[in-house]
Amino acid sequence: MFESAELGHHLGREAYEAEVSELREALLDAQHELKERAAGPVIILINGMDGAGRSETLAQIDAWLDPRLVPVYAQTAMFADPVDEATGRPWLWRYWNALPPRGQIGVYFGSWYSDVLFGRVYGQTTEQQALQALAETLMFEKQLAAEGASIVKFWLHLSKADQKNRLKSLEKDPATRWRVSERDWQHVKDYDAIRAEAERMLRATSIAESPWVVVEGLNARYREITVGRTLLNMLKAGLEHNAKPVVHDDTPPLLPPVDGVMLLDTLQLDQPLDKSEYKARLAELQSRLAQLTREAAFANHSLLIAFEGNDAAGKGGAIRRLAMALDARRYRIIPVAAPTEEERAKPWLWRFWRHVPKRGGISIFDRTWYGRVLVERVEGFCREVDWMRAYNEINDFERQLHAAGAIVVKFWLTISKEEQLARFKAREETGFKRFKITDEDWRNRDKWDDYKLAVCDMIDRTSTHHSPWTLVEANNKYYARIKVLETVCAAIEKRLAEGAKGSKKGKLA
Amino acid sequence: MFESAELGHHLGREAYEAEVSELREALLDAQHELKERAAGPVIILINGMDGAGRSETLAQIDAWLDPRLVPVYAQTAMFADPVDEATGRPWLWRYWNALPPRGQIGVYFGSWYSDVLFGRVYGQTTEQQALQALAETLMFEKQLAAEGASIVKFWLHLSKADQKNRLKSLEKDPATRWRVSERDWQHVKDYDAIRAEAERMLRATSIAESPWVVVEGLNARYREITVGRTLLNMLKAGLEHNAKPVVHDDTPPLLPPVDGVMLLDTLQLDQPLDKSEYKARLAELQSRLAQLTREAAFANHSLLIAFEGNDAAGKGGAIRRLAMALDARRYRIIPVAAPTEEERAKPWLWRFWRHVPKRGGISIFDRTWYGRVLVERVEGFCREVDWMRAYNEINDFERQLHAAGAIVVKFWLTISKEEQLARFKAREETGFKRFKITDEDWRNRDKWDDYKLAVCDMIDRTSTHHSPWTLVEANNKYYARIKVLETVCAAIEKRLAEGAKGSKKGKLA
Repeated sequence: MFESAELGHHLGREAYEAEVSELREALLDAQHELKERAAGPVIILINGMDGAGRSETLAQIDAWLDPRLVPVYAQTAMFADPVDEATGRPWLWRYWNALPPRGQIGVYFGSWYSDVLFGRVYGQTTEQQALQALAETLMFEKQLAAEGASIVKFWLHLSKADQKNRLKSLEKDPATRWRVSERDWQHVKDYDAIRAEAERMLRATSIAESPWVVVEGLNARYREITVGRTLLNMLKAGLEHNAKPVVHDDTPPLLPPVDGVMLLDTLQLDQPLDKSEYKARLAELQSRLAQLTREAAFANHSLLIAFEGNDAAGKGGAIRRLAMALDARRYRIIPVAAPTEEERAKPWLWRFWRHVPKRGGISIFDRTWYGRVLVERVEGFCREVDWMRAYNEINDFERQLHAAGAIVVKFWLTISKEEQLARFKAREETGFKRFKITDEDWRNRDKWDDYKLAVCDMIDRTSTHHSPWTLVEANNKYYARIKVLETVCAAIEKRLAEGAKGSKKGKLA
Repeated sequence: MFESAELGHHLGREAYEAEVSELREALLDAQHELKERAAGPVIILINGMDGAGRSETLAQIDAWLDPRLVPVYAQTAMFADPVDEATGRPWLWRYWNALPPRGQIGVYFGSWYSDVLFGRVYGQTTEQQALQALAETLMFEKQLAAEGASIVKFWLHLSKADQKNRLKSLEKDPATRWRVSERDWQHVKDYDAIRAEAERMLRATSIAESPWVVVEGLNARYREITVGRTLLNMLKAGLEHNAKPVVHDDTPPLLPPVDGVMLLDTLQLDQPLDKSEYKARLAELQSRLAQLTREAAFANHSLLIAFEGNDAAGKGGAIRRLAMALDARRYRIIPVAAPTEEERAKPWLWRFWRHVPKRGGISIFDRTWYGRVLVERVEGFCREVDWMRAYNEINDFERQLHAAGAIVVKFWLTISKEEQLARFKAREETGFKRFKITDEDWRNRDKWDDYKLAVCDMIDRTSTHHSPWTLVEANNKYYARIKVLETVCAAIEKRLAEGAKGSKKGKLA
């Protein structure tokens, strides 16, 4: 990987001067075209050896491009534990949150790779952790690429001798001596080990969607022009392929069961529970939930409650009964509607990643990321290959949440078609509830069977041991609310008990 | 994953009879269209729970389709060690070798997944081995999909109660009692563990390119129609997307170094070695090689020697000097030319997988799989995204070879442009060598710089610690031949010495 980057590449001043102005101008032009056409985004990762010009490259990008359109995301070590220690969120959360929108260029400085690399060299990271982290990273990068991002990963390189010489000459000059630390010398000492690990890592993660580009960093002019030309090239390629990326679209569509029997049909939707018993159990469960979420151990976790269900199935009512038991400073209800313009400019999961609660926090989603495999599938808002891909993306998202300590509880509230009709009519007749019923609700009702198929596929493909679906028979609202509360309490209790027994890391998830 | 497949699905005889004839006819039609248009291939994997109808499904496919166009590949356990114990080849080798060509349907019965599953449940397989195997499998399947294959993975399912009942009723009948083994009852006992592992595995490997389709196997009519409809659907989808699959093609092309200094230019191509010294060293090295390849420990390994180089760089001569030292029963020379029709109907790496030597064997490749990133890149025989992808595919191929015990030695023979001209002219003037020079050689020469860039990228991106490139300065043929022989001897010695120290499994490769 580094053979061509240890040759002592060097570009003379004249050659540099002859090119630099035109190159910078071309870059600015391309950048503004990217913005205008809302193409991309372009994502740049900067990594490399000590002294090979990483910060200089960051400064160069800042100087050569219009910095208003280049958000920069610096990095701090986060790999030692796959959980983001500070917040209890998955470690990729900060990268999801920092994604540039279409039309922009994002620079990740340091990035996830450094931590894996040094974690391996200095033994804090096991082989399995490293494999897991690199797999998660590649899945992340592929997801971005599949939705139009162009990604380039720069590795700035320096040979062993050049790295050593650099430190020596810095030390010789009293004005620069302060820049050399013990850690720098340690890295020189460990150069061979670092180089070997870096080579393996780069090779394992240089994929067509996000290749590594190795640049020798010895000579600043050579480095700058190389980085500049590569960026220009990427911007141009990104603009050419501005159209939505086309991918292998040869997925066998999922079929309904040939005997017509579907999971949702097996539910007994009318469940008995009368008002007085409901009230008694509600009070008891709310008190149990209030206590559970105030336990000391709960502060090591977060709670995500996902509500999906038929229109008028009673999501709102169930959510209110939950919320009543929760500390208002801790929970947020996130109503999910059609994506905003800002959200549409990012990969589809971004708008859910941003609402991942931190340690001790509770997020209640009224409609969720499952819209991708429900409404977007049924209405054709995305292609088949996109929603097929989404099952994987969702499972991975929830697995990361679970690994970071989150408790994920998912509800599908089911009512019968007749019950829905009765509720729609009642809403139309009741003044203050009229806002709750729209033409769209009636239109969705016409696609009842399409939605049913989508829901069954969703449950089959995303009900995992760490975040299972709970189907709620909801013709009787009292019963439904009690089942929701019970399930949430049980899920918290189970997780806290597991926590007490120690975590089960490294399981196939 | 199994929620909808434990409902007791059942299809009545009437409904079955009403559909089956038409479905079978449609399948045959689609199959023949697939053949005629050389689309696909279609690859079917059959896995599942005991008693859920795996062999019955195999028989069904055989009966419903034209079996002349459906090769079936049965499976035997191979996971316990990632190396194919019998032959010392990578475990995926047998699957590569069994690939159906375009226009055909291949059925893998049992397949790699069973081994991972039972290996995990019964503890012979570590978590890391399982992760590694599943990652290799997904890479394999994606590679097939990227070149046009449609893949579907059937999981035939049975609930715990149904599995138990099935065994009981088989045991009750004296005519079928023999079919029930102790192992069957063991699997019933371990049903929950098997189901949990299967669920994780299926979810981790159900990707858009090769999704799992879960089919409840309790009722034969339900199972047959479900399998039949799914296949028909796949065949139709495959035919619709018959055109070469289009993938994200937004790769930043690799650029030449901006100072024009390239790795190949740094070589001192004229190396001194006179004829008499050459003869002495040749004899000595050939004797060393002869002994090394006849050592007992060598029988645990295989040897792949890959030759690439400029036209007229002396590959043939170097190969002959190697071969002279080898046991003729053990080695094969594989001259690689343009792919045959049969080879073009398979994924591009297939024609190299088929020549992977078994334990103790030696394959010498005169031109290699690197044609993908050399001639195919330079001449535009494949798309940029294809050769960018190939670096990964090649590294993974060689990593698997290495893990299976192979010693991989790769040579790039370099001559100067002037030396090449002299040799071309000499060949044209020497009668018996005239066949060695063609118009194509002259055309390639015109693209000298394009090839040089491709070679440098190739070395940077595929020179791994386990199978490094050796650059051979070849203006002096004597020197080149000696360097080749020395390198091969050293590589064998190194590997045999490592073997003596025990293998280094589980490194990032």
